Amino acid sequence: VGDRVPAAILGASGLIGQHFARLLDDHPRFEVTSLLAGERESPVTLGSVWQLPEDPPRSLADLRITSVGPAALARSGVRIAFSALPSGVAGPVETELRRRGVSVFSNASDHRMDDDVPLLVPEVNAAHLRALARPGRPLLVTNANCTTTGLVLGLAPVWGLLRPKAVHVASYQALSGAGLEGVAALHTTDNVVPYIRGEEEKVAEESRRILGAASRGRVRENRVRVLAHCVRVAVRDGHLEAITVEAAARPALSTLEQAFREFDPLADSSLPTAPHPPVLLRTELDRPQPLRDRWAGAPPRARGMAAVVGRLRWDPPYLRFFVLSHNAVRGGAGGSVLNAELADAEGLLPFPG
Amino acid sequence: VGDRVPAAILGASGLIGQHFARLLDDHPRFEVTSLLAGERESPVTLGSVWQLPEDPPRSLADLRITSVGPAALARSGVRIAFSALPSGVAGPVETELRRRGVSVFSNASDHRMDDDVPLLVPEVNAAHLRALARPGRPLLVTNANCTTTGLVLGLAPVWGLLRPKAVHVASYQALSGAGLEGVAALHTTDNVVPYIRGEEEKVAEESRRILGAASRGRVRENRVRVLAHCVRVAVRDGHLEAITVEAAARPALSTLEQAFREFDPLADSSLPTAPHPPVLLRTELDRPQPLRDRWAGAPPRARGMAAVVGRLRWDPPYLRFFVLSHNAVRGGAGGSVLNAELADAEGLLPFPG
Amino acid sequence: VGDRVPAAILGASGLIGQHFARLLDDHPRFEVTSLLAGERESPVTLGSVWQLPEDPPRSLADLRITSVGPAALARSGVRIAFSALPSGVAGPVETELRRRGVSVFSNASDHRMDDDVPLLVPEVNAAHLRALARPGRPLLVTNANCTTTGLVLGLAPVWGLLRPKAVHVASYQALSGAGLEGVAALHTTDNVVPYIRGEEEKVAEESRRILGAASRGRVRENRVRVLAHCVRVAVRDGHLEAITVEAAARPALSTLEQAFREFDPLADSSLPTAPHPPVLLRTELDRPQPLRDRWAGAPPRARGMAAVVGRLRWDPPYLRFFVLSHNAVRGGAGGSVLNAELADAEGLLPFPG
Amino acid sequence: VGDRVPAAILGASGLIGQHFARLLDDHPRFEVTSLLAGERESPVTLGSVWQLPEDPPRSLADLRITSVGPAALARSGVRIAFSALPSGVAGPVETELRRRGVSVFSNASDHRMDDDVPLLVPEVNAAHLRALARPGRPLLVTNANCTTTGLVLGLAPVWGLLRPKAVHVASYQALSGAGLEGVAALHTTDNVVPYIRGEEEKVAEESRRILGAASRGRVRENRVRVLAHCVRVAVRDGHLEAITVEAAARPALSTLEQAFREFDPLADSSLPTAPHPPVLLRTELDRPQPLRDRWAGAPPRARGMAAVVGRLRWDPPYLRFFVLSHNAVRGGAGGSVLNAELADAEGLLPFPG
Repeated sequence: VGDRVPAAILGASGLIGQHFARLLDDHPRFEVTSLLAGERESPVTLGSVWQLPEDPPRSLADLRITSVGPAALARSGVRIAFSALPSGVAGPVETELRRRGVSVFSNASDHRMDDDVPLLVPEVNAAHLRALARPGRPLLVTNANCTTTGLVLGLAPVWGLLRPKAVHVASYQALSGAGLEGVAALHTTDNVVPYIRGEEEKVAEESRRILGAASRGRVRENRVRVLAHCVRVAVRDGHLEAITVEAAARPALSTLEQAFREFDPLADSSLPTAPHPPVLLRTELDRPQPLRDRWAGAPPRARGMAAVVGRLRWDPPYLRFFVLSHNAVRGGAGGSVLNAELADAEGLLPFPG
Repeated sequence: VGDRVPAAILGASGLIGQHFARLLDDHPRFEVTSLLAGERESPVTLGSVWQLPEDPPRSLADLRITSVGPAALARSGVRIAFSALPSGVAGPVETELRRRGVSVFSNASDHRMDDDVPLLVPEVNAAHLRALARPGRPLLVTNANCTTTGLVLGLAPVWGLLRPKAVHVASYQALSGAGLEGVAALHTTDNVVPYIRGEEEKVAEESRRILGAASRGRVRENRVRVLAHCVRVAVRDGHLEAITVEAAARPALSTLEQAFREFDPLADSSLPTAPHPPVLLRTELDRPQPLRDRWAGAPPRARGMAAVVGRLRWDPPYLRFFVLSHNAVRGGAGGSVLNAELADAEGLLPFPG
Repeated sequence: VGDRVPAAILGASGLIGQHFARLLDDHPRFEVTSLLAGERESPVTLGSVWQLPEDPPRSLADLRITSVGPAALARSGVRIAFSALPSGVAGPVETELRRRGVSVFSNASDHRMDDDVPLLVPEVNAAHLRALARPGRPLLVTNANCTTTGLVLGLAPVWGLLRPKAVHVASYQALSGAGLEGVAALHTTDNVVPYIRGEEEKVAEESRRILGAASRGRVRENRVRVLAHCVRVAVRDGHLEAITVEAAARPALSTLEQAFREFDPLADSSLPTAPHPPVLLRTELDRPQPLRDRWAGAPPRARGMAAVVGRLRWDPPYLRFFVLSHNAVRGGAGGSVLNAELADAEGLLPFPG
Repeated sequence: VGDRVPAAILGASGLIGQHFARLLDDHPRFEVTSLLAGERESPVTLGSVWQLPEDPPRSLADLRITSVGPAALARSGVRIAFSALPSGVAGPVETELRRRGVSVFSNASDHRMDDDVPLLVPEVNAAHLRALARPGRPLLVTNANCTTTGLVLGLAPVWGLLRPKAVHVASYQALSGAGLEGVAALHTTDNVVPYIRGEEEKVAEESRRILGAASRGRVRENRVRVLAHCVRVAVRDGHLEAITVEAAARPALSTLEQAFREFDPLADSSLPTAPHPPVLLRTELDRPQPLRDRWAGAPPRARGMAAVVGRLRWDPPYLRFFVLSHNAVRGGAGGSVLNAELADAEGLLPFPG
């Protein structure tokens, strides 16, 4: 596979970093040649710090995690970096990498609201990528916050039909959304916590940006009201969201159901990690559930990439439903992998394929 | 305490029945003389089937659970019955008991929407009790569904200020809401379930009834839209609710806060189980939480009877907050005990006190 | 695949029955043609009652679950039955099926201690199968209790080296060991329960039988003392066991480690569901763990079939370690599938292959 | 209450420190006048950092947590310090405090195995206190590790009858044993972890010391073998232990039961925090359980101080049972409070009472 693009994973020892490693194992287009993390005294292999329940990816388990800086990384031949760096740390590193010719696909929030950075969920706003990319310039593209991702995927199929005025969300967010050690067991055993720092603001502003229109090199935020209640629950993976859309239009329920079922904007592409369909509509009374629906999407590559919608109810002007998506896959590492695949397919990665 | 009213607990072996026993232990006005349950072959003591984490109430642990019918119960001198019977079973038994002169305070849903039955949360709609009681007739009074109870308590302090057009609720409901064996551990370990049979309908219709106006012997439902998403989470006790009120009025936030703080309609009564204040407003970023707030209310009698509100946010026209209440106490047995205390204080129990 | 053996799953709607369906999906030797369960009023498809987190097996999802009796089942051409019937129900049905020419591989405990029934864990006591099988007679073979299975797999590699006098086990048993609805969430949320009916007795007597010597058509129980403490914990799948062996011999620790590493009695067979090695020895400080080790074994067929041993400590005369095995796979349906594969490979299934 | 002894809590912001505050609220003999913790930039009140589910203790909620050193603390008039300092930090601070005239009762492990420091569980080895105390010298007394405490309480009633040769323990340890943030939720949700650093060694060596004989100013370790398997489970509070005693003597089961029931070495003292009896023998099939038994002991002061034994089985030479004790109360702060009460009652606190 000599023509794969040399890639790095930044923040490889954390939870999202390890999902990147899992998802990029034997990837047809990208070849992980560098694993980076800042905090180690001496290099360790990925396998020795592996924390996910499944075994470490065979092709990367013995690769060492190092801590070289952006300059050295760029010199090493890496052309694309997947960033799982923590907020605050990510910002300047990602900027510097792009300056040195490395395209960055990031899960970090630092650049998500930057004017010239596509905040991208391919099935929802692929046009933003095209509108903001500049010929010859390395890309800096971010995936959305994990809760935002599920929300906009759940809304996209029916957005045009509903003409929403306001979107109300209440989330049931999984532990892994806070990283490997982010939530203490005493906080969530026999408990739920109705607060996640910064989350409600991110859901609101990111959703409006993603649902906005891009033109002439910039994105104009959608003006819909988005109001989120964000709550942590004792679930390992998979964010559930209770959604109520206040709509100006009143299509028939069957029209809405059909829209969910037919939604597949990437149907004609062949992105390896893209799920088809990206949003599954279930009709059972008690779905979606994190345990049963978080890995939706066809194995091996699209597993965990599909969102699942259920309990669709239409009490005009209120459309109500639940959406579930895997926060660390679709709403994390997988989102950025898909973003990179889209950029690659669109010829926006400025290197020989 | 010769002048206490002889009382029975129906459904004494279940979770709500045991909370009734706990709450009525050494009650100043009611004396439990009969424990009833249908299913036993031979009588057992309450202590021997006790399932709550705390020890069984000393005064009732050795009392036997029997299965006499309404007629025998009425003959035995019992004048008031607290019903924790299952839906379906409760309806005819409660009707028959009232016919035979026993006043019934019920947690069952069977009669909640009956025209002549007060669906009562004393701090919210005490007037309904007065409007529907008929001189000389034994009472049949029900408490509200556990989720409804927290909702209307959270809304009551600001209801008049907001003039709500719609109320959106997403619930995080505890396991005990389904009874002792109601939820299998495999359903909620590493999972949440976005469906509870009949719950969303109950929340909507009961709330509108409780918030309605009573006059001339009947209740006119409030016309506000109430839309609930109901979800089961892995918490033992305490229903959390994320609430968004779409309001017609725009009072200042400080006015709303003050309304929460000053709310105490039962301040001048001396009902033993009434919490003061009935709704606590907390200002910490991450409250209310089931683990830490479910037992709010002054011990011993009002413990678990107060609702706790937090994260109050006002983005007009949307007022948003969380409310937490103990589903099995305030939203269950404790609700009916308080209802009986109110009826007693108002002189509506047709027997010598 | 015309030469596969027509097979039935008894108790197909329960947890072990569904694991049978999962494991027998596209099996190279057995073809599931009948799904049976007693309790349904009208036939339903397997897919419609599916309860496991993963999707239902493609080849069986649309097969209907029926309730025909042993006679009709035998007439239908089924030659082998996998039984996940509940204890008590299983006994007579399995006897009758064998009488009618159907070989039975059962997870039920009813016949496990019968003189002429191999209680089989292939890597441990394959000789029992040969000793008890009678030419021309359909087989009735049982797998062991889920806790027993992990125990004997953990002991087998070092049994001969240690000459054990007593074996002490304390278990950390998963929820699925009690079936889909077997444990109420209120019993295990923020709790563990130190009692599982009949379990400690089964572990003791089954272990002694499996570790016994078979000759002249019968098995002589091993006389080692086996003493178990059995406890339910809030884990979905995977029984962990803390084992202390009181030994008469004192081999070097390195000898014991080597014995674990070289153990693979089925190495030369090619049973599709057999894991190689069947017992993994891990050296990390904190393994095995249910979450991370329960699916040990090579996918697709041997996934969840390997036991994992860790924390091996030798304080003579006490050898101590932990063992983990998937209770519903290795210690349930997978155990019986492997038993059937062994019987098939040994030519003990009295039908044309 | 002018004659109460001025006391300090060291490590007041942690979980054990907060239990100290809870247990010393309105204590009849000790008056908490100082709360110390090292890590704060500016003083905060205890109430503002309170983490336990119950409300902060009324008498201490507004007291500020400061970070004065041993010298200043001694000068302030404090005569007794309750230490919840972390291991490593505790050692030199406690030594220095004693040197400056402050008696220390510590939950930290640093000094537990020191020759001249009583490792004390009053009902088990009160004689150690008398043997090691020196007239006029401030005391340094430690409580035992949380798992050790439950173990020796469970063994003490029958120790003399059994003449144990070996004790096997497998633990089911609660999350709070690791402190407020000690266990990440991703490690124990749908999982148990068979490793707790240093725990198995502590259980072995501390048990042998506590069960040893004290004479001539030193303790001679008991020579019994103690072998522990230590495992973390998803329980908030309460360590369960499965115990197997290999005994040289063979008393009747009824004799053993009687010994458990009659055990109350502190019956004639009137220590405020001492539970009577200190070990409850339960006969239900499924007890003790953390959820239901961790708060055993009479409220208010002895709540959580009693150990609960159950499932007593006698298969000579093996006596088997489970013991449960509240790790943070009986096996933590409460242990040291009881130790201080004993020292006070014995006149070993070198200050005017």
